[in-house]
Amino acid sequence: MQLQQVSGYQYIEGGVCAAVGFVANGCHCGLYPNKVKNDLGIIYSSTSCHTAAVYTTNKVQAAPILVTKSHLQKTDGIARAVIANSKYANACTADGEEKAEKMCALAAKELGISKEEVLVASTGVIGQELPIEPIAAHIKDLTAGMSAENHKEAVRAIMTTDTVEKEVAVAFELDGKTCHLGGMAKGSGMIHPNMATTLNFITTDAAVAVPMLQKALRETVKLTYNCLVVDGDTSTNDMVCLLANGTAGNKEISEEGEAYEKLKKALYLVLMNLTRMLAADGEGATKLLECTCAGAPDLDTAIIVAKSVIHSPLVKSAMFGADANCGRVLCAVGYADADFDAKKADVVFSSAKGEIAVCQNGIGLDFSEEKAVEILSEDEIQILVNLHQGEVSAKAWGCDLTYDYVKINADYRS
Amino acid sequence: MQLQQVSGYQYIEGGVCAAVGFVANGCHCGLYPNKVKNDLGIIYSSTSCHTAAVYTTNKVQAAPILVTKSHLQKTDGIARAVIANSKYANACTADGEEKAEKMCALAAKELGISKEEVLVASTGVIGQELPIEPIAAHIKDLTAGMSAENHKEAVRAIMTTDTVEKEVAVAFELDGKTCHLGGMAKGSGMIHPNMATTLNFITTDAAVAVPMLQKALRETVKLTYNCLVVDGDTSTNDMVCLLANGTAGNKEISEEGEAYEKLKKALYLVLMNLTRMLAADGEGATKLLECTCAGAPDLDTAIIVAKSVIHSPLVKSAMFGADANCGRVLCAVGYADADFDAKKADVVFSSAKGEIAVCQNGIGLDFSEEKAVEILSEDEIQILVNLHQGEVSAKAWGCDLTYDYVKINADYRS
Repeated sequence: MQLQQVSGYQYIEGGVCAAVGFVANGCHCGLYPNKVKNDLGIIYSSTSCHTAAVYTTNKVQAAPILVTKSHLQKTDGIARAVIANSKYANACTADGEEKAEKMCALAAKELGISKEEVLVASTGVIGQELPIEPIAAHIKDLTAGMSAENHKEAVRAIMTTDTVEKEVAVAFELDGKTCHLGGMAKGSGMIHPNMATTLNFITTDAAVAVPMLQKALRETVKLTYNCLVVDGDTSTNDMVCLLANGTAGNKEISEEGEAYEKLKKALYLVLMNLTRMLAADGEGATKLLECTCAGAPDLDTAIIVAKSVIHSPLVKSAMFGADANCGRVLCAVGYADADFDAKKADVVFSSAKGEIAVCQNGIGLDFSEEKAVEILSEDEIQILVNLHQGEVSAKAWGCDLTYDYVKINADYRS
Repeated sequence: MQLQQVSGYQYIEGGVCAAVGFVANGCHCGLYPNKVKNDLGIIYSSTSCHTAAVYTTNKVQAAPILVTKSHLQKTDGIARAVIANSKYANACTADGEEKAEKMCALAAKELGISKEEVLVASTGVIGQELPIEPIAAHIKDLTAGMSAENHKEAVRAIMTTDTVEKEVAVAFELDGKTCHLGGMAKGSGMIHPNMATTLNFITTDAAVAVPMLQKALRETVKLTYNCLVVDGDTSTNDMVCLLANGTAGNKEISEEGEAYEKLKKALYLVLMNLTRMLAADGEGATKLLECTCAGAPDLDTAIIVAKSVIHSPLVKSAMFGADANCGRVLCAVGYADADFDAKKADVVFSSAKGEIAVCQNGIGLDFSEEKAVEILSEDEIQILVNLHQGEVSAKAWGCDLTYDYVKINADYRS
């Protein structure tokens, strides 16, 4: 996938360990009984971190969400480690919070920190009890093996139906000091715009006060993860957390201004690219879809329209079939829940193979079906909707709907 | 499909012509160039009808919706005929309203009535111009061939991806007079709860004042078509219209009371069974899913929860795979947009093969996977969610998500 180059920011390796002072690891502790795949991971900072987090809006919140919230409340947003597992969601079970606290305590003991400084996340099957023994049996080796090189081991520990590891990191300058901000994410189904979406752990060595860190995260999630749709389901376990340990030595960002905007741009680049990776690796996906709504009267309208198009199963199915069905795009624009005139919309499809206008002023255009199929057969498709009633634009990301989505989800638990 | 028997109502044959005084017909006029399938249909009453209608909430409204609204406004709710076509939606084209008016005028001329007494509906591809010539060339034969026996010809004229004809009719008594109420519907994709959903034409020989007819239709659509989800898309062309010609000779229903309730019950039975038929014949469906939310504090909460479960692609995929994944049901309950405590929910799956409790008080239960697969392998599945926080219940209907849904929609236009 092509990363968008922006002056002043360099993409670098290292993922969640790109920021100085962070180490990570992952292992197969045995939560997956029948396959050797990492199912337990850890991220650790050598010094205390200011921490911000955004959580699922589902009324059913998994135990690790509740425990992480409680820990950050007790420490006023200070944390040093994240422990995470896959295979079991640790949600909708009788002993969930006890198990989540135990995971934190096990990690804290090895790391010599308090359990409130450990955050916890789980992903997997809902409603089945999480076995704690495999985690207890492997925590010593897991922490002993932590290093800045092992970031991919941690990523693999949170993957479920993901087919590729998702990591992005950037370097940039604040006050003449080089800062790093990077992270990792897991998909790939149960992804919905109205929430934090999936598990995402982001770290930086920039010094940022907790309130500004939380503000930057909230504002950036609105434009990235919250504009991602794979299937329209909203998970019980989703979380984005952002840890800043300040080792870069910049002046701590404690108010809006140039430094805050530079940090936020770094966060946007990391989250936006992770969002695109999540979309491209959506369950069963063969194509990344990016919808840009331009000419909107305001940001919320632009976001709502772009998401409505990306969310439509009929648009998603048509893109799988390389069918330039402009009617389905217009239809999805028309049921977007915002106040605007849908009859002025233009629609253009584009990809690396060129672009084709399929609709102008709400009226379908004649176009070359041959050219349209060529454009829509690429693995990254742009859908541009111009409302012609303002200056604001926003993007949303998703993927096509394929046979394999159904196949993956018809018997996920086994 | 089993029809639910209710004392005082007999299911009868005849569909949209079950009510005395209605005739219908359908033909292949040539809108489908490459296959012989009815694509033009008509319904006609020998006397004037009081008429009620509910339309799509999509901001992009197809030309026939605009023309039908305008005609009913001009006549104060009086109509005598409906003309409908498939293959072209007559939406998002430059000359749509002119074509829709022309369809009405062509029918009106043959029938010797005003064009404002004709309602019009279209279904099919959006954004391509509707050819009027095939309709003009066949209108004489179409109207000449109308009869009470030809109701199935009319149904076939509005079918697109439907695999079965959908008709229901009942007989009941008002003031000692036998009344009939029946109708027809088409699916089967682009079906969403927040609107009238699909094309539906309902007729009755009961005498009902326009305001009470509109009230009965609105209240019943809320509990039936608006609780139906196939894929979450909302079409530009959807319409339910209800014509009452009063030939049964009952005292005209002009206020709430016993007669109104009896009529509304007849309307509910017809719309509810059509809704179930639409769900069972959803694009690619192998199973009808019916979710009942019981124990809700109020009707809106019950409807929202039932719809949220039926709408979840992950629940729909799990049902296709006969996978008793209670976590996905709880997750969908949890993101239902209403104010209630999701942690008290019980979940039970049932079918003709028995029932199995999979969740109690928000906690997953141990259950026999073998028994669960047996129950979920039936072609009609009930999902019961009991919130235990009130006395109100509501249902929603949908279908499983299958490979064939994707296949049908990957290249619909060709």
